[in-house]
Amino acid sequence: MFLGKKPKEKLPPIEETAKNFRIVDGEPYLDEIFEYDMDVSRGFSRAELSEEDYISAYSRVINRLLAHGEHKFFVAVDPYGRYLGHVWVCIMEDTVDFVPTAYILDIETKVHGLGIGSALLERAEAWAREKGASKVSLRVELNNPALEWYKKRNYRERAFILEKEL
Amino acid sequence: MFLGKKPKEKLPPIEETAKNFRIVDGEPYLDEIFEYDMDVSRGFSRAELSEEDYISAYSRVINRLLAHGEHKFFVAVDPYGRYLGHVWVCIMEDTVDFVPTAYILDIETKVHGLGIGSALLERAEAWAREKGASKVSLRVELNNPALEWYKKRNYRERAFILEKEL
Repeated sequence: MFLGKKPKEKLPPIEETAKNFRIVDGEPYLDEIFEYDMDVSRGFSRAELSEEDYISAYSRVINRLLAHGEHKFFVAVDPYGRYLGHVWVCIMEDTVDFVPTAYILDIETKVHGLGIGSALLERAEAWAREKGASKVSLRVELNNPALEWYKKRNYRERAFILEKEL
Repeated sequence: MFLGKKPKEKLPPIEETAKNFRIVDGEPYLDEIFEYDMDVSRGFSRAELSEEDYISAYSRVINRLLAHGEHKFFVAVDPYGRYLGHVWVCIMEDTVDFVPTAYILDIETKVHGLGIGSALLERAEAWAREKGASKVSLRVELNNPALEWYKKRNYRERAFILEKEL
């Protein structure tokens, strides 16, 4: 008799269970977080890298980001403990204002329209406030509809990231 | 007889000599670069820190920036070798595109209207191209007139930095 994980087909799909989500510490879910993020991020990348080069570049970038500051992950899970989304927040001194600043490095949800993203963002902000951060900062690509989503949540444009091909 | 530095009053002011500037490696000028940048940066900072706390926060941020990537400094100097401005560029893998990217971390000039800033930027771009960077990226505050200066030099808006007070 197999006593490992329950076979997945016994559980209802997450689209049905996600409405009863809760937010928990994300550290036990780091494998799922980075697996999901790596897939999503690839859609935003303009680089044409092979699978192997992409995984390797992704890992280097993640490890560099983790090298400084205090990092925290939260995940949204359904009643079966299944991953529905995550937020990655980090506190560092800002390079412009020189004050402790929370950076939302990533926020993703697998199911939309249920308030999972909002709940993750609020939890990250609450954690950052407790830790003494005086502001929260994040980057949004110009063509990303998330821009409006953040504005509704009182985020304001502070700076541009400019780019030029070499 | 005093054989040290020539007294400063013997030299014409940099406003007169700056038109004959040249661009050289900035590493021997790091003290002057950071001293000047620390003054300028303070004008952009929204934090109300004491002199001591500001210097200490500034140093921590600079050291964190220097911890990753390949860094290069260029300075503009007048015919007497006096500092007129600098550019600080660093090559790292981009966190969105995962390609080697040049970041202009700082660019400052003491004398304007002589093409010193353009010459510094071009030298930084040329260095980055030689080193294999495929694009160059930088941050400009929304209220900074430098935005138009960069646009004239073919920089394009790629993303917003959003902020929210906590």
